[in-house]
Amino acid sequence: MTHKPPVIAMDLEGVLVPEIWIAVAVKTGIDALRLTTRDVSDYDKLMRGRLDILKSHSLTITDIQEVISTLDPLDGAKNYLDRIRKVTQLILLSDTFYEFAYPLMKKLDYPTLFCNSLIIDEHGTITGYQLRKQDGKRTAVKALKECGFRVLAVGDSYNDTTMLGEADAGILFNAPQNVADEFPQFPRLTDFDRLFEAVSDFIVR
Amino acid sequence: MTHKPPVIAMDLEGVLVPEIWIAVAVKTGIDALRLTTRDVSDYDKLMRGRLDILKSHSLTITDIQEVISTLDPLDGAKNYLDRIRKVTQLILLSDTFYEFAYPLMKKLDYPTLFCNSLIIDEHGTITGYQLRKQDGKRTAVKALKECGFRVLAVGDSYNDTTMLGEADAGILFNAPQNVADEFPQFPRLTDFDRLFEAVSDFIVR
Repeated sequence: MTHKPPVIAMDLEGVLVPEIWIAVAVKTGIDALRLTTRDVSDYDKLMRGRLDILKSHSLTITDIQEVISTLDPLDGAKNYLDRIRKVTQLILLSDTFYEFAYPLMKKLDYPTLFCNSLIIDEHGTITGYQLRKQDGKRTAVKALKECGFRVLAVGDSYNDTTMLGEADAGILFNAPQNVADEFPQFPRLTDFDRLFEAVSDFIVR
Repeated sequence: MTHKPPVIAMDLEGVLVPEIWIAVAVKTGIDALRLTTRDVSDYDKLMRGRLDILKSHSLTITDIQEVISTLDPLDGAKNYLDRIRKVTQLILLSDTFYEFAYPLMKKLDYPTLFCNSLIIDEHGTITGYQLRKQDGKRTAVKALKECGFRVLAVGDSYNDTTMLGEADAGILFNAPQNVADEFPQFPRLTDFDRLFEAVSDFIVR
């Protein structure tokens, strides 16, 4: 048995909370905001398009935060996090933005979140964004390992697979079929109770 | 203005909660447990001495956890953490052990904690310990910077000064006079409201 302490690196969107841009598209009725990296592979192009759409609809950060504050964590997510935090350390790794995530973090009792920042002008218009790092999730898992932790990473999408590979163990949670097919090396779970069991096994390993 | 997101790296003992070994010495009446790194400069020798004392008094991890669960966070610490976690990200960096810290983390609503692990046998006897890393606080601040964060570090003791130096900004909080004298480059604060102001200034810098 190793005595390196464990830490759980969890994805946020699609795993614990809804996909934020999709939810904003639904709530605002702006269908063009439904585009994702599956439709536009260049992330910067996708983000600039999204920000242009918000601007053309005169939607400020406050408007978007109001929309996001009507969202709720996915069923069972809060209970799962509460259980995890009582027995081990947890860090949420997400490609979203702090300015979007805070209304949802409140509903999850403020777990630690590593994500990115928006650039907002004095009128509340979102003028840009800044990624913390390229491949930020994998970089964070690597940094946690350099701190002397054993890392279990949990995520659902392509953008999680590099951190799942970097971690000491990786689990696909609620992953779409194509991601599961392409990464058969990672166990696939769809239920928070089973995920909690897997986390518990990792802690005492 | 930079758009690197901020993170606050906070020491735990002496800053947010009492010094745990001292408190255990007081509650158990075992004066020999009052020795600190000021009395025994070799940390490993100090820790092995402490574990021998626990063993000679037949004190198991459960006994120690019961003692620790009677401790409370320092006045104002919980309120300060609640305020911080609503506006930025926070990680506690401590040289203590998870097995000691959990009863106190519960009282602080489970903020993320980076610390060390005890080695415990099947009878609950603490047989050893494992440091996550040498100079673990500084290593963690460095790792957070490598993740793309701006780091503000807050601590009270000699063992915090390397992380204060590594961070983008460092603050001595409730530091003894000798530490403050030796490290005049760090601002010295003694009040949680003033500390919250300093954190707020750092966030928007």
